[in-house]
Amino acid sequence: MALIVAKFGGTSVADIERIEIAAKKIAREVAAGHKVAVVVSAMSGVTNQLVEYCGKISPLYDVREYDVVVSSGEQVTAGLMALALQKHGVPARSWLGWQVPIHTSEMHGKARIEGIETEELHKRLDAGEVAVVPGFQGVTGRNRISTLGRGGSDTSAVALAAALGAERCDIYTDVDGVYTTDPRIVPQARKLKKISYEEMMELASLGAKVLQTRSVEIAAKMDVPIQVLSSFEDHIGSDLPGTLVTREEDIVEQEVVSGIAYSRDEAKVTALGVPDVPGVAAKLFTPLAKAGINVDMIVQNVSADGKSTDMTFTVPRVELARAQEVIGKQADLKATKIVTADNVAKVSVVGIGMTSHSGVASKMFETLAEKGINIQVIATSEIKISVLIEEDYVELAVRALHAAYGLEEKKKAV
Amino acid sequence: MALIVAKFGGTSVADIERIEIAAKKIAREVAAGHKVAVVVSAMSGVTNQLVEYCGKISPLYDVREYDVVVSSGEQVTAGLMALALQKHGVPARSWLGWQVPIHTSEMHGKARIEGIETEELHKRLDAGEVAVVPGFQGVTGRNRISTLGRGGSDTSAVALAAALGAERCDIYTDVDGVYTTDPRIVPQARKLKKISYEEMMELASLGAKVLQTRSVEIAAKMDVPIQVLSSFEDHIGSDLPGTLVTREEDIVEQEVVSGIAYSRDEAKVTALGVPDVPGVAAKLFTPLAKAGINVDMIVQNVSADGKSTDMTFTVPRVELARAQEVIGKQADLKATKIVTADNVAKVSVVGIGMTSHSGVASKMFETLAEKGINIQVIATSEIKISVLIEEDYVELAVRALHAAYGLEEKKKAV
Repeated sequence: MALIVAKFGGTSVADIERIEIAAKKIAREVAAGHKVAVVVSAMSGVTNQLVEYCGKISPLYDVREYDVVVSSGEQVTAGLMALALQKHGVPARSWLGWQVPIHTSEMHGKARIEGIETEELHKRLDAGEVAVVPGFQGVTGRNRISTLGRGGSDTSAVALAAALGAERCDIYTDVDGVYTTDPRIVPQARKLKKISYEEMMELASLGAKVLQTRSVEIAAKMDVPIQVLSSFEDHIGSDLPGTLVTREEDIVEQEVVSGIAYSRDEAKVTALGVPDVPGVAAKLFTPLAKAGINVDMIVQNVSADGKSTDMTFTVPRVELARAQEVIGKQADLKATKIVTADNVAKVSVVGIGMTSHSGVASKMFETLAEKGINIQVIATSEIKISVLIEEDYVELAVRALHAAYGLEEKKKAV
Repeated sequence: MALIVAKFGGTSVADIERIEIAAKKIAREVAAGHKVAVVVSAMSGVTNQLVEYCGKISPLYDVREYDVVVSSGEQVTAGLMALALQKHGVPARSWLGWQVPIHTSEMHGKARIEGIETEELHKRLDAGEVAVVPGFQGVTGRNRISTLGRGGSDTSAVALAAALGAERCDIYTDVDGVYTTDPRIVPQARKLKKISYEEMMELASLGAKVLQTRSVEIAAKMDVPIQVLSSFEDHIGSDLPGTLVTREEDIVEQEVVSGIAYSRDEAKVTALGVPDVPGVAAKLFTPLAKAGINVDMIVQNVSADGKSTDMTFTVPRVELARAQEVIGKQADLKATKIVTADNVAKVSVVGIGMTSHSGVASKMFETLAEKGINIQVIATSEIKISVLIEEDYVELAVRALHAAYGLEEKKKAV
């Protein structure tokens, strides 16, 4: 008998039929003797509609009122899920963010969870009642509704699991786990049985949209194993059929490389001929940071003449116009020219095993070279190597790397 | 400078355009120096959709969870209205039922307002901020969301106006006031400038669906003048262009008859040959009351033989089947036969002036007789005479009575 938090995403509660299917899964967990808290997203499409309403009134809306509007989607699903559980014979009630309460910061629209009161929830769970908690929402110290930012329901679920001391957080979604790469590009992509928090964070931040990055961060910090599994298949979390995101130590058969990630949401900016003097990087990046533009890969070439140099970095493609505007205002940057490109993509090799294995990077460069793919920028971390390439080559690069590291589905013995 | 509560119904906040039009009206009230609290319904259609979701899961749902689901519609509109007001330069914030708080009974789905805390609201109103309150919702002593029953937003508005000591409660809707009768039946129906609380209660309970009966009861008890006006016309409540529902004493030109109401939601039940002994009425009506069936008109004929009598009464048409079932179980009623009819309608003449004028009833009976309309049952109150007739004659009866009491629009002087 364990305490489990189960989270259902938007497509898993898209309509009454899907909500009932989710409720039946929870009923099976309860029948197996587990205590369960359920976290629900809004029905798919609802949040977009509510966001659109706010934007239609004013693009510069008061985020506190935006939170009142958009948090209603999860409220509806929470009530409906409680009703569906009751229908299937499971005692249940909904607990809205302000009822739990889930305390958050005052940063409306992207609030951070600061604490979750669990005394009453524990009492109810111990008495056999399922607690249904709307994801994405909390309450501020001023008693106003806050939301955690898009995809925040994953964060709600993991934070609730941590606060309750749950054994596991099951994330039910429309894919059945975490794959070695995007199966739409590589049909032979293999579902991972286990992956470390650190690798999952890299994959999530690199565009594998299975889990929100922030939720994996919390899971790593609080050591809450997350299981990613499909609500569209006939199994439940306790059968463990998805991908378990857990501590590195708990993964026995460590692979050198776990997956190949890619992201098309990139744009490249190069400042040509900036003076090669101390402080020039600060002149470039401080204004960008102040404007809230997230700079990713940064490369500064060695100065050829000792006087000037070129600096290249990447920003999210949607921020490119704004980044150009910000840089254009920095007269004392003294760049001879600013060159930008938005036909670039980032491809990354991720694997916790690469810290103890040499040759991972060279294999990447060789593989790309063999296919005639030019590398524009390189960035590395402990468990990741990323390269920026021309966008047209993304699929080719991902397929070649997936094969080079031997990540395909193993052939079944006949 | 006055404090006004303005309520906008579902069609008046049906989409973003309508919400903006409503916000502009409030902005004009604020510009005129008034303090304003706004009460909003859900966008039209939204509540029905949410009710349908609950019913689809289970017809016998937990009303506490139903309240969580259906209250979300007004929450959305409240946030959007606050945003729209801000856009038009008016400081505003939303106050959900649990934030005000609006305390209600534990009767989920049809809770009664027990108290509204106004200290903080008054502070904000005094500081020039508009308070936007979702109608229909409150919070119970157990800190759960409650709703007041369909049409409850009118009640929210009037109760808030009473609690705040508002000068007036403006109800913006899709009709421009209260008419002497249904203009779809009588095109010459005249809009009333003023009507007493008592008359409005009779009209509301008789099917004139402009205001919820309960809201008029509270208005009468707390003496809150209500103004009914159209949000689809270019005027605001402070211009007083609608119908004012107020105290009898405040109506100078009292009319004998104010209006002709009708209701098709009626069914007739007759118990033939029941023993003419004490207690027989209790045997019939106590079980109906226990089943929650609202009995309206009751007639007991004089016993012809001193041994048995016939009893006739009306129930809402939707309750007829259930009423028959309840009566069928009363074996000791000893009726020889139960006869029912659902092709009946109630037509009523309402007017506070009739208490001091004779001849109102006789004029009604004469008028109907002239048109060959048979009266099946008669019921009277201090300010109302109702008759039950065959449903096919409704329009004819209403038109004839409207003319007989001289309620038509007065011809303009040339």
